[in-house]
Amino acid sequence: MKQDPGPQSISADPGARPALRAESLLERYREIRSMSDALASSLSDEDCNLQSMPDASPVKWNLAHTSWFFETFVLRAYEDQYEPFDPSFAYLFNSYYAALGDRHARDRRGIISRPGMDRVRAYRFWVDERVAGLLRRIDLPVFEQTIELGLQHEQQHQELLLTDIKHAFACNPLRPTYQAIEHDPAAEPPELGWLPLSPAVYEIGHNGAGFAYDNESPRHRVYAGDCELSDRLVTNGEYLRFMQDGGYERQELWLDDGWSFVQRDGLAAPLYWRRPGDRWVEFTMSGEREVDPAEPVCHISFFEADAYARWAHARLPTEAEWEAAFGLVPVRGHFASAGILHPMAASADPDGGPMQVFGDCWEWTGSPYRPYPGYRPPAGAIGEYNGKFMNGKYVLKGGSCFTPEGHVRPTYRNFFTPESRWQAAGIRLARDPA
Amino acid sequence: MKQDPGPQSISADPGARPALRAESLLERYREIRSMSDALASSLSDEDCNLQSMPDASPVKWNLAHTSWFFETFVLRAYEDQYEPFDPSFAYLFNSYYAALGDRHARDRRGIISRPGMDRVRAYRFWVDERVAGLLRRIDLPVFEQTIELGLQHEQQHQELLLTDIKHAFACNPLRPTYQAIEHDPAAEPPELGWLPLSPAVYEIGHNGAGFAYDNESPRHRVYAGDCELSDRLVTNGEYLRFMQDGGYERQELWLDDGWSFVQRDGLAAPLYWRRPGDRWVEFTMSGEREVDPAEPVCHISFFEADAYARWAHARLPTEAEWEAAFGLVPVRGHFASAGILHPMAASADPDGGPMQVFGDCWEWTGSPYRPYPGYRPPAGAIGEYNGKFMNGKYVLKGGSCFTPEGHVRPTYRNFFTPESRWQAAGIRLARDPA
Amino acid sequence: MKQDPGPQSISADPGARPALRAESLLERYREIRSMSDALASSLSDEDCNLQSMPDASPVKWNLAHTSWFFETFVLRAYEDQYEPFDPSFAYLFNSYYAALGDRHARDRRGIISRPGMDRVRAYRFWVDERVAGLLRRIDLPVFEQTIELGLQHEQQHQELLLTDIKHAFACNPLRPTYQAIEHDPAAEPPELGWLPLSPAVYEIGHNGAGFAYDNESPRHRVYAGDCELSDRLVTNGEYLRFMQDGGYERQELWLDDGWSFVQRDGLAAPLYWRRPGDRWVEFTMSGEREVDPAEPVCHISFFEADAYARWAHARLPTEAEWEAAFGLVPVRGHFASAGILHPMAASADPDGGPMQVFGDCWEWTGSPYRPYPGYRPPAGAIGEYNGKFMNGKYVLKGGSCFTPEGHVRPTYRNFFTPESRWQAAGIRLARDPA
Amino acid sequence: MKQDPGPQSISADPGARPALRAESLLERYREIRSMSDALASSLSDEDCNLQSMPDASPVKWNLAHTSWFFETFVLRAYEDQYEPFDPSFAYLFNSYYAALGDRHARDRRGIISRPGMDRVRAYRFWVDERVAGLLRRIDLPVFEQTIELGLQHEQQHQELLLTDIKHAFACNPLRPTYQAIEHDPAAEPPELGWLPLSPAVYEIGHNGAGFAYDNESPRHRVYAGDCELSDRLVTNGEYLRFMQDGGYERQELWLDDGWSFVQRDGLAAPLYWRRPGDRWVEFTMSGEREVDPAEPVCHISFFEADAYARWAHARLPTEAEWEAAFGLVPVRGHFASAGILHPMAASADPDGGPMQVFGDCWEWTGSPYRPYPGYRPPAGAIGEYNGKFMNGKYVLKGGSCFTPEGHVRPTYRNFFTPESRWQAAGIRLARDPA
Repeated sequence: MKQDPGPQSISADPGARPALRAESLLERYREIRSMSDALASSLSDEDCNLQSMPDASPVKWNLAHTSWFFETFVLRAYEDQYEPFDPSFAYLFNSYYAALGDRHARDRRGIISRPGMDRVRAYRFWVDERVAGLLRRIDLPVFEQTIELGLQHEQQHQELLLTDIKHAFACNPLRPTYQAIEHDPAAEPPELGWLPLSPAVYEIGHNGAGFAYDNESPRHRVYAGDCELSDRLVTNGEYLRFMQDGGYERQELWLDDGWSFVQRDGLAAPLYWRRPGDRWVEFTMSGEREVDPAEPVCHISFFEADAYARWAHARLPTEAEWEAAFGLVPVRGHFASAGILHPMAASADPDGGPMQVFGDCWEWTGSPYRPYPGYRPPAGAIGEYNGKFMNGKYVLKGGSCFTPEGHVRPTYRNFFTPESRWQAAGIRLARDPA
Repeated sequence: MKQDPGPQSISADPGARPALRAESLLERYREIRSMSDALASSLSDEDCNLQSMPDASPVKWNLAHTSWFFETFVLRAYEDQYEPFDPSFAYLFNSYYAALGDRHARDRRGIISRPGMDRVRAYRFWVDERVAGLLRRIDLPVFEQTIELGLQHEQQHQELLLTDIKHAFACNPLRPTYQAIEHDPAAEPPELGWLPLSPAVYEIGHNGAGFAYDNESPRHRVYAGDCELSDRLVTNGEYLRFMQDGGYERQELWLDDGWSFVQRDGLAAPLYWRRPGDRWVEFTMSGEREVDPAEPVCHISFFEADAYARWAHARLPTEAEWEAAFGLVPVRGHFASAGILHPMAASADPDGGPMQVFGDCWEWTGSPYRPYPGYRPPAGAIGEYNGKFMNGKYVLKGGSCFTPEGHVRPTYRNFFTPESRWQAAGIRLARDPA
Repeated sequence: MKQDPGPQSISADPGARPALRAESLLERYREIRSMSDALASSLSDEDCNLQSMPDASPVKWNLAHTSWFFETFVLRAYEDQYEPFDPSFAYLFNSYYAALGDRHARDRRGIISRPGMDRVRAYRFWVDERVAGLLRRIDLPVFEQTIELGLQHEQQHQELLLTDIKHAFACNPLRPTYQAIEHDPAAEPPELGWLPLSPAVYEIGHNGAGFAYDNESPRHRVYAGDCELSDRLVTNGEYLRFMQDGGYERQELWLDDGWSFVQRDGLAAPLYWRRPGDRWVEFTMSGEREVDPAEPVCHISFFEADAYARWAHARLPTEAEWEAAFGLVPVRGHFASAGILHPMAASADPDGGPMQVFGDCWEWTGSPYRPYPGYRPPAGAIGEYNGKFMNGKYVLKGGSCFTPEGHVRPTYRNFFTPESRWQAAGIRLARDPA
Repeated sequence: MKQDPGPQSISADPGARPALRAESLLERYREIRSMSDALASSLSDEDCNLQSMPDASPVKWNLAHTSWFFETFVLRAYEDQYEPFDPSFAYLFNSYYAALGDRHARDRRGIISRPGMDRVRAYRFWVDERVAGLLRRIDLPVFEQTIELGLQHEQQHQELLLTDIKHAFACNPLRPTYQAIEHDPAAEPPELGWLPLSPAVYEIGHNGAGFAYDNESPRHRVYAGDCELSDRLVTNGEYLRFMQDGGYERQELWLDDGWSFVQRDGLAAPLYWRRPGDRWVEFTMSGEREVDPAEPVCHISFFEADAYARWAHARLPTEAEWEAAFGLVPVRGHFASAGILHPMAASADPDGGPMQVFGDCWEWTGSPYRPYPGYRPPAGAIGEYNGKFMNGKYVLKGGSCFTPEGHVRPTYRNFFTPESRWQAAGIRLARDPA
């Protein structure tokens, strides 16, 4: 993939982006918004109000907050003399936009039994009607870009809604199930192979076509390569060998902060694993079942991914390596729309290409989440969307089985603290020449 | 009230106790159990699952736990080969009985969205049917005593249900209301008067007639007296003068631990008071309204009661003084059945007797909650009901506006940590001869 | 000991109090003050600056603070235009007297390397010279009472100095020794006997003769008795049987708060015990050595004392029972002046009296530390000495092997939180009639 | 500095490295080791035992630990049948090398009054004698490299010794001084200028000549540039304007984690600044004095540096930019050997070069501390020196007024958490083309 002498251009396929024209945008709006409702349809009102930890939000809050986003950035901006649905919602459902004023404490979202689910559904309906009206009347690019941002935001919260309810259900000793899907043990995946990346100057970041978040820009040159990336994700079976080899007890395999985390929280397995008898079981959206050794290991922290890689005489890829290697791979994989809501075992690509690049599990990179050279957050409150979080987190790439189809792209930069485990994150390895 | 030379006998009126006979006991059972359901009838399922702090439990949990109590101590003991309604409930709804095995974490009760309210209602129905069956067949005294204990326990949780939902609603920025009751400003109460207590050997504690908790026994002699008790509770108006006089800023008025509490939590007023403009408002079960200076001050901690008393050149009465002085006062007052769920202003007793002794507000005493001489907890799990909590708490007397009518008696020993504020606790003063 | 019909008078022997006359008071002043220096004489400057936990203070701080006490309450009050030794010391060495202004944080006393030990010794000398001058000129009773209070205060800090340095040394993996004393295994103590206490009205508290702290007053009547107190302290051997019987693992033996303490801190033995091999060893002021089963168990919390008593089918005595039973026992025993600084095994009293009542170990009572009826703290800053601590602590009686001879009396009320273990506290049992 | 088409080689001047020959190495050993003792010579034994926070260590501990380093990695490895000076020191003075076994808790180093300073001095002498003996006998390169590593390690702890005692003294309300140096207000520094960096592939990292830590390797290519770096550090005067402009109150200037830090710790100025009256004063090694506006701002966290840069419409340079820009700048500046132990005001470079690149203040970069491509920690315990800390920290460049002369080089990677303030860290700005 090297381009000589100048740097190489790698970009997402702009054709995959929806045309930002009114009719199709309205259709897209309705489709994405109704998907959020559909995701909550199997849940009781009590389920929808659960907040199992400060990082997770109630389903109801996710549903209301995404509506607040459209109300705040679309209705208030484009409706004449807009009267809000409920003036208190600006306080209740603002997540973290300090420029928009005070807001309800993040770790106390579970206390909001009122407004109830009925009223939040009414709120969604109200917002949707008005946004639809605007979509019929306005076709300014900046308006459409804001709609698109709201839809991308909605999709992010669809993923959070799923991971948040999974976490909440896992905290309930009864271990309720979100959906009933039978699982048949998967076939053994192909042996781990390695894909070389030549050393070169590459270009990474968003190239300007189609939607992207501000943090994917500017597109810029990086020098990377002279390494190999594994052609599939690490499996549960492989991770079990790490565990059996004392992975969680051997300090030398861990970063110092990771070791403190292991000690303090008593980590001994991925997040949703338990060992009630002599076999490991795993909590899934369809209940607890035996760990399938063929599936990719999932719900692990950066620290666990990093320790596994060290144990395997490898390391995590950097963000630049990942994007340089996979920037032209088609965005296909097991996303939320597959309905399984669990990562699937790899099966060999008929064309010999890399497996599980998109969907299944987010892939921890070894790259801290920092601004690209020349990055500037947008003006106004929306500038708080991404920029202020650029500390203490690592970049993840590729999307997961909870990510809505069409939401992710090669330049997408997801980011979480290195202790985070409730997202569907797994491991792709990299290695340097011996 | 002095008896010479032997100690004086003061006891609750045994006639106030319900006859423990089968028919009336069944009726009493149905009445008390259905009252719990009635208290939750205005709440949504989402409301019923709220846990606003570790000390408070969800309404649903209160409803399930009281049923678990009957299931555990009655059905398991008296039904042949009893099959539990749901085997998992023994884990979910055990509060703190270590002898009965592991249980769900106290501060994580709010995570139990499943079982939902419907299933908990079915649980209550199932338990009630079976207990009713037993009540028709068995008339052993020990059986009836256990039923009665279960009903007293149910009533305690009715009070908790109300104070817990009040706390949860107060945490919601929308400040939902539990019921809609108009409040008219109360008339100025009579000036504070003082009732003398002669020094003598008194008897306090349960005298054996009617129901009482183990911690009220044995009845025993104490030497007390040579002091005066105030004839009514301290009012909001009086407490406001304490606040205006720097009550919360003057270290010399506070116990050392109380001062640390004030500093750490930034205390500046009773729990549900706010000052959004230039007047103090108070959150009540009927919403937020102006503080009424005639009503008794309420929802204060022991430390605040103690500091107020010091400011007023008085002190809190001891448990023995309170019971010696009020042991023969008829148990009348504003209880939960009055439907107001807020303490009411004092009005002069036509017979010149003490006011607000029962109902309105629990009264903090200066007595730490410790065992009476010769106290022995019952054998078995039920021995954990009261005995193991005899550290770090103070005794409160007299019941509150949230206490079910008939639940309280002069010998009743309620107990909370000195920081607790979510119970309806207020201040009666005592003073020594100058 | 019952007196009928009136209450019985029990008081400390006033003849044991030092005459408060100028010459003997000066002599007493010099003797007690120089004892403090002597206690620190085997320690390095580095030792003297250690603060091993917030509750403990550096030796140097203890030496400076007691001098500050004389400077503040004697020199400032009685010297004309007194110029302080160092104006900054009012901030550095005030312990907790809020009325005297801001002070250095209690848990940061170990940071004060400057002033060094030399300067603190100079401070002591300066204060002593001036106090001696005043003692020669003034013979006002109130002056002499303040001197006496300062000396009693000094003695309290002598005890703290010893327990604080013991704790600090125990935190050092090298386990330094304070002094070298050989220990020969003690002879088996007499079997535990029981002393009856008749039910009656007793008088407890200070009777007015000789020095006493404000918290020992007023002398007042209590009804107590109909129980027995053990005639000696519980031994290490007896406590080992409690441990072997699962004492630290059986929840039913513990108060709820005690059980939380055991769980949180991983308690499994008295404070200074370790089990490096198959035998228990104990850290003493003379280094680590095998636990001697004949010696009284020591350095245990109230919660451990209470759990042991429950295991032994007994309970802790109340403060009133202890004082009613032992109020006339001569104040003899193993105090700090014995030089051993460790509790000694009981040996039978030739007159058949109770053993180990004074000295050896402070004895936890079951009585929370609260004011006596009619208690009033003194006016001014000195009123903070005792009164503001009357919450969350239990009374201990009788003094310990670290208490200076002559400091303790039957009415003495020591008090610590129920978790405290670094004081030399042990167990005397009480039991009720079967 | 661009090299086209291949990457450019920038390396530290190998001539600046000491010749690793026996005689000069012994001389260098003696010189550096005696410098450590000299730095502690003005301190009392009590001063030397202070630990003011978990991140800081006692001076005595620093002196002992560096000796332990030589004992462990030199004497144990190269002396026949080495008998340690004191077997307990392996436990007491191991910092964080898990491979070498258990060690004393990092945050409890201040409890080690024994061994005292005298014994630690004897330990240093003992180690020095034996190392000197080995230096005369052995000239293996690997031996000499270990000696050199020990000396570099010693120098790091010289810097820590100084910053640790500064922090400890600043915690003492008396604010003792380390040394007495008069300060005359500095002349106004030159106006801030900007140095351009051309976009190109650069090489950064250690080139193999002279000593470097493992984390500076491998030398590797990076793409960087198209930006400007400021030619001097930000001054106190400039930082005061940021403060006056509400720098610490404006959320929009801060990273989210930085804002939480400001809120939680109440940050309002650099670490050692106070405002007792109407002027800011600063605690220095020579006591408290007025903040000099001409001096570079110092003792600030990464978060403050980052917020200042945002306020100034700039950003922090990346590590690669810094090294690309300054890799050939001679290593001259105000180091510890200047004796001032405080950063000095910039004065214009006669050759127009950048100012304050080395010495004065460590310069926060915007680069998280992560491994260089192909980085491998050394085998054995020494592999824990740097590698395991590569999370949650930012790289700092250039050394400070506390850094020993000759210790730092352009490739040097210092690293601290973004909250750290007790190191002498300041701000150099970068900016992108508009």
